[in-house]
Amino acid sequence: MTEDELIEKLRAIVAPAAPGALLVGIGDDAAVWQPSRSHRSVITTDALVEGVHFARDTMDLYDAGWRAAVASLSDLAAMGARPVLATVALGVPLGTSVEELLELYRGIAAISKEEGLAIVGGDLTRSPALSVAMTAIGEVRASNVKRRDGARKGDIIAVTGELGASRAGLDVARGAATVAAASAQEALRAHRRPRARVREGRWLAASANVHAMMDCSDGLSTDLARLCDASGIRGIVESVPVADAARVVAETLGQDAILYALSGGEEYELIVAVEHRAFAHLAARFSARFRTTLWRVGSLREGMGVAESRDGEERPLSRSGWDHFR
Amino acid sequence: MTEDELIEKLRAIVAPAAPGALLVGIGDDAAVWQPSRSHRSVITTDALVEGVHFARDTMDLYDAGWRAAVASLSDLAAMGARPVLATVALGVPLGTSVEELLELYRGIAAISKEEGLAIVGGDLTRSPALSVAMTAIGEVRASNVKRRDGARKGDIIAVTGELGASRAGLDVARGAATVAAASAQEALRAHRRPRARVREGRWLAASANVHAMMDCSDGLSTDLARLCDASGIRGIVESVPVADAARVVAETLGQDAILYALSGGEEYELIVAVEHRAFAHLAARFSARFRTTLWRVGSLREGMGVAESRDGEERPLSRSGWDHFR
Repeated sequence: MTEDELIEKLRAIVAPAAPGALLVGIGDDAAVWQPSRSHRSVITTDALVEGVHFARDTMDLYDAGWRAAVASLSDLAAMGARPVLATVALGVPLGTSVEELLELYRGIAAISKEEGLAIVGGDLTRSPALSVAMTAIGEVRASNVKRRDGARKGDIIAVTGELGASRAGLDVARGAATVAAASAQEALRAHRRPRARVREGRWLAASANVHAMMDCSDGLSTDLARLCDASGIRGIVESVPVADAARVVAETLGQDAILYALSGGEEYELIVAVEHRAFAHLAARFSARFRTTLWRVGSLREGMGVAESRDGEERPLSRSGWDHFR
Repeated sequence: MTEDELIEKLRAIVAPAAPGALLVGIGDDAAVWQPSRSHRSVITTDALVEGVHFARDTMDLYDAGWRAAVASLSDLAAMGARPVLATVALGVPLGTSVEELLELYRGIAAISKEEGLAIVGGDLTRSPALSVAMTAIGEVRASNVKRRDGARKGDIIAVTGELGASRAGLDVARGAATVAAASAQEALRAHRRPRARVREGRWLAASANVHAMMDCSDGLSTDLARLCDASGIRGIVESVPVADAARVVAETLGQDAILYALSGGEEYELIVAVEHRAFAHLAARFSARFRTTLWRVGSLREGMGVAESRDGEERPLSRSGWDHFR
């Protein structure tokens, strides 16, 4: 059973209890509800577990806290929401020092503060592995909420940045080989201190020409397939923007940089489905605003699944990204 | 370092980021913020970890899910809030069957549905121990928010029910001895399927004569001390309502029923500080409404700490409740 199939079963158990005020439930980056007529609130939960999502030999606890917060911030960004507040549930193994816990918390606090996310509460408990479960709440205008099921035939698929550096950074951290210093540092930074596209997500969400949005934290191939499934549409991937650092690291290690980019995961770019005839103008405005490229990845057409288009042929693209329940 | 001291250190790290809309932050049962002028939202997070909070030989997974939800519901109740929605982050060890996970989720769903709490999302991840981190959101009128720091000199301290049955139930489940059938069943039920005082909490919160409220999920002695500390006041415990089942079990096992009641924890009654001259009337209305007693436990006076008053003498009451970091 895949993670998505399991989530579907869990959703069936709780489905009858969803109230009228709930606008988006289980299955998107975040749930959306309506606390009052004029407001939409967005809520998302992400857990990070030592030994599953991070290891101390490749990432210190400040970075682990940072990344836990970024995972939540990215889910808010994918809904077009402004970060408001969050709670943190820490699971702490025996033998953890207070200083280690404070480092973890400092990492959470640093990026949260920068993005306007207030940490307002939480829970502390013993646990066999160090874990952080973070729940974040954001706010968004009703007209700006972007779901993953809104993509349409003919839309352009784009991503907000180059991919693959985080996975490359993990290989660098594992010390698999000596890599040119600048690229190694860049890849490590992508792995340890990723950024969420919060401003970009809010800006994109304000455009009626953006039909669907989600983050690609589980890898482009997996998450694009989810977006296509949710929208009932077929995705054709034409080209994937690969980070320079990922290319250099892959070359040194004899790895495939495209695989890093397609299935690496743990990076927090947004996938957007944009109205075809509006894409060029939107991408130009995006570049001018954020001094970074909105990369065209492919397009959507009638059908199902995701395919790679290469040399005029279409080949199915497997979901090679991160599935916690593979 | 105690759990409370650690929380204070964590609070210091995130404190500067608290926004103006945040009305109650870290240190109460739940945080309170203002999503719009007329609304107050309440958020609380609780984690339950196998081997720390429950063991499968004393509780099945349905019950564990139930209790995770009740912990959150009780925090909302303690703020006087109506349950609205929640997210669930599940940590799942290798070897867990889908059916086991669904059982856990059914327990969460059953009590959540009954109390109007919609499960709207969550996260699934591998983890070395089965764990549930639940974040719940409620709504409350601005004038009804009850904090733990509002208690005043002269107030009566009361609890919404008899205590000790949950701890007694744990001893029964561990099979320490044969206990009279009816009491054993009652204690087991208190341990496995506790209830949160949601309706009672909302009703009490609507009274201006209730100055402070919190739940006693970590045990009366610990949580009353927290309320007194937060309010800068001294608590005098005169009598503790002990559940019949706790008495019978304690007697059979040679345990102290009062200790069960004072320090058992894992039960979800509310502690309230009530204006002295309003108490009798409030308690009478409470009994008429809920067909259960609002038990007078003691009173508050100037000073610090919590003491037990017995035979005209005052003795300090130690914090013998559940502290995860003892």
